Amino acid sequence: MALMLDSLRKEVIRAHLELVRRGLVMETFGNVSAFDRASKVVVIKPSGVPYESLRPEDLVLTDLQGRTVAGTLRPSTDLVTHLELYRALPEAGAVIHTHSRFATIWAQAKREIPCVGTTHADYFPCAVPVTRDLMAREIEADYEFNTAMLIVKEVRDRFPLDITAVLVASHGPFCWGPTVEAALHSASILEEIARMAYYTMTLNPAAAPISNHLLNKHYSRKHGRDAYYGQAPAT
Amino acid sequence: MALMLDSLRKEVIRAHLELVRRGLVMETFGNVSAFDRASKVVVIKPSGVPYESLRPEDLVLTDLQGRTVAGTLRPSTDLVTHLELYRALPEAGAVIHTHSRFATIWAQAKREIPCVGTTHADYFPCAVPVTRDLMAREIEADYEFNTAMLIVKEVRDRFPLDITAVLVASHGPFCWGPTVEAALHSASILEEIARMAYYTMTLNPAAAPISNHLLNKHYSRKHGRDAYYGQAPAT
Amino acid sequence: MALMLDSLRKEVIRAHLELVRRGLVMETFGNVSAFDRASKVVVIKPSGVPYESLRPEDLVLTDLQGRTVAGTLRPSTDLVTHLELYRALPEAGAVIHTHSRFATIWAQAKREIPCVGTTHADYFPCAVPVTRDLMAREIEADYEFNTAMLIVKEVRDRFPLDITAVLVASHGPFCWGPTVEAALHSASILEEIARMAYYTMTLNPAAAPISNHLLNKHYSRKHGRDAYYGQAPAT
Amino acid sequence: MALMLDSLRKEVIRAHLELVRRGLVMETFGNVSAFDRASKVVVIKPSGVPYESLRPEDLVLTDLQGRTVAGTLRPSTDLVTHLELYRALPEAGAVIHTHSRFATIWAQAKREIPCVGTTHADYFPCAVPVTRDLMAREIEADYEFNTAMLIVKEVRDRFPLDITAVLVASHGPFCWGPTVEAALHSASILEEIARMAYYTMTLNPAAAPISNHLLNKHYSRKHGRDAYYGQAPAT
Repeated sequence: MALMLDSLRKEVIRAHLELVRRGLVMETFGNVSAFDRASKVVVIKPSGVPYESLRPEDLVLTDLQGRTVAGTLRPSTDLVTHLELYRALPEAGAVIHTHSRFATIWAQAKREIPCVGTTHADYFPCAVPVTRDLMAREIEADYEFNTAMLIVKEVRDRFPLDITAVLVASHGPFCWGPTVEAALHSASILEEIARMAYYTMTLNPAAAPISNHLLNKHYSRKHGRDAYYGQAPAT
Repeated sequence: MALMLDSLRKEVIRAHLELVRRGLVMETFGNVSAFDRASKVVVIKPSGVPYESLRPEDLVLTDLQGRTVAGTLRPSTDLVTHLELYRALPEAGAVIHTHSRFATIWAQAKREIPCVGTTHADYFPCAVPVTRDLMAREIEADYEFNTAMLIVKEVRDRFPLDITAVLVASHGPFCWGPTVEAALHSASILEEIARMAYYTMTLNPAAAPISNHLLNKHYSRKHGRDAYYGQAPAT
Repeated sequence: MALMLDSLRKEVIRAHLELVRRGLVMETFGNVSAFDRASKVVVIKPSGVPYESLRPEDLVLTDLQGRTVAGTLRPSTDLVTHLELYRALPEAGAVIHTHSRFATIWAQAKREIPCVGTTHADYFPCAVPVTRDLMAREIEADYEFNTAMLIVKEVRDRFPLDITAVLVASHGPFCWGPTVEAALHSASILEEIARMAYYTMTLNPAAAPISNHLLNKHYSRKHGRDAYYGQAPAT
Repeated sequence: MALMLDSLRKEVIRAHLELVRRGLVMETFGNVSAFDRASKVVVIKPSGVPYESLRPEDLVLTDLQGRTVAGTLRPSTDLVTHLELYRALPEAGAVIHTHSRFATIWAQAKREIPCVGTTHADYFPCAVPVTRDLMAREIEADYEFNTAMLIVKEVRDRFPLDITAVLVASHGPFCWGPTVEAALHSASILEEIARMAYYTMTLNPAAAPISNHLLNKHYSRKHGRDAYYGQAPAT
């Protein structure tokens, strides 16, 4: 277990630096966590610490109740949201929250990102959903918990699709995947499809989502049982 | 022949790196092939391999029927589209497919790129066409072949103009040229004119294409029998 | 006092270079000053000198009446505006004026920047105000003084909120903070939220500001008595 | 004279590299010339030669009739336009033509760039004009000469203002100044104000030009008899 957690710490550190390198965060507008399902330990960024000075020992380790099991700093204020996503989404091994520019503007515009092209369909099996607004009482008490509940609702409403990103209305994206690398991939692709969807819709406000035929063709070329993209896995 | 193919392999590797350097691809959203008309061999990228790790021996060589003649990896899923373009377009020695941002948004908006300025006219002799949507049955069977057929139709409809780029609706651009360098040039210029056309049309939605007089003046200053741009070829 | 001023000189030099590095200025479109409240001395950029060649001894030191107390060059033409902000805003220890692209376009559009997301609410407690137009007589005499008066009016109208940025109509932003670092932070965040607000409003012209509940939740998570973002101050 | 021309050659080479560095050109979409009024010799870029391989001896020297007086390559196809600008504009010592992105989209939209802010007013004394369309016969014969005539007309219509940039409709900007450095400055600032005007007008299509009072205040703070921006010239 200690070895697994050491490895997750390094991946979480590296992921924060990658967010900067890929232009997905400025300042400390984003946080990454990873979850070791065997030991039920979450590794998460401390609150308000600049990424470039993050050391593995600065990361906070908690259990699923949010109790610190290692580390001396305060965890990210978004910890509770991360925890609830790990509880509700059995396939999530890492969660990334950013304020990446174009994903965030769809969240601010309170619009789902429509699937207007095959780049989107290569990675996401449907429109990227946006949550409803939180109500006043959901903001005042248990804000971070209620945020997670709205994200989970969007995922459940679309089950059994493999959604790996949801926009929180007026806020920004949460992304996840089985590994830190996969969650990072989801966050990167999301930003690019959000950007292209912005330019598509401002060029042609009447642009319609692609057909389900085309969406399924592209998504299934890359994912699932009949995928024929990429190299065959070694056997 | 072996020497020619070695040279094409190097050019194809270099072109993938150039696509990254020029900001025309992210991830593995693009593929380049070259065709040696003497030996009828196509050199193409393997599917899903990161560009920076591509070695000449990773490239797949096929005949015009798509049968591998050298290489051990799976070719790009878009191989069939590339093959059909080489069959139909006698002047094509290289084909490049990207999801470059602004060319793609015109494809997603399902609008041809109008020739609204002389930068466009310096390189393309007409609007850059966009294909019609594929029908459900064209998606379900022989998708990549049918994609090529729609591209070829757009070229034939405009014959005898020298079109070297077509947008596939909801997808992105395919570009070509007699050499890898020329195809790369077409892909680069296409992205820039797509970008300027986006900003022009959002600034002035009523902006009209330039006159045929002006279009022909610029295109023929650079191309064709009476060209007077550039240096005279050595004689 | 001499030590304090030496330190401010270095910070002012560094801040100009940071403005360039962060893409907030081109040419000499911006100026930074710092104010030592103990000695009542302002340290400001000389007019029209390229940032990269600025040396500490080129900076101009003045009193609050604008009389030079050290330095041989002319101060920035905006000196009077800076002086009046120090007089009126007791918490200001540094003032930064830029023509950063997206903050400036809101100023040119003569629209306040609405708080359409939590990124904004994390840093600014309300819409970022824009001044009214200057009248002809306010332009012809005491232009820089009158500019400051309009900025101060916007701050006073919103008292007791901690505004640290105002847009001068048709011109650009003035930002401030207790330290040079804080003013720089305000200028950077302002540009990012201005940019995201531009894209949000062009994507969805009907996008509404977030609720006061959500605004206060985010602002107070980071600022004020009940803040729970970041690490606890050492005690 | 030889020394002067050697110096101009170096400046013209450097200016092409600066255009690339400042992001004002891609490929060979731009050309720079300089004029030595004493010897009446123009130094201009050869046609279609990549900037990075330009050597001083590649430049073409011509008289005002366009006859080559030194150099073995063909001059830029736009030579005639440059020559006519030197004839008509006594203050022009250098001319730069680019297809820089945002200046070009205003030209393609066939709209003058309105003065919507003080950044514009700091450098240009009025809207940046756009020429009328060339007529069919003006395109077919003496195209480059007629282009110059339309530019000159826009300057004359606004005399005695110091215009140093005009947009050629559907094409792109021509800029000039007493020196190569000044022309480069005009081309850079033009691009930035064109970019900010685009974002301003798409944010608020009803945004109006600033008042003449404000325009004159800013322009005259920096230029002309009563300028008080920058340092006093050495005496």
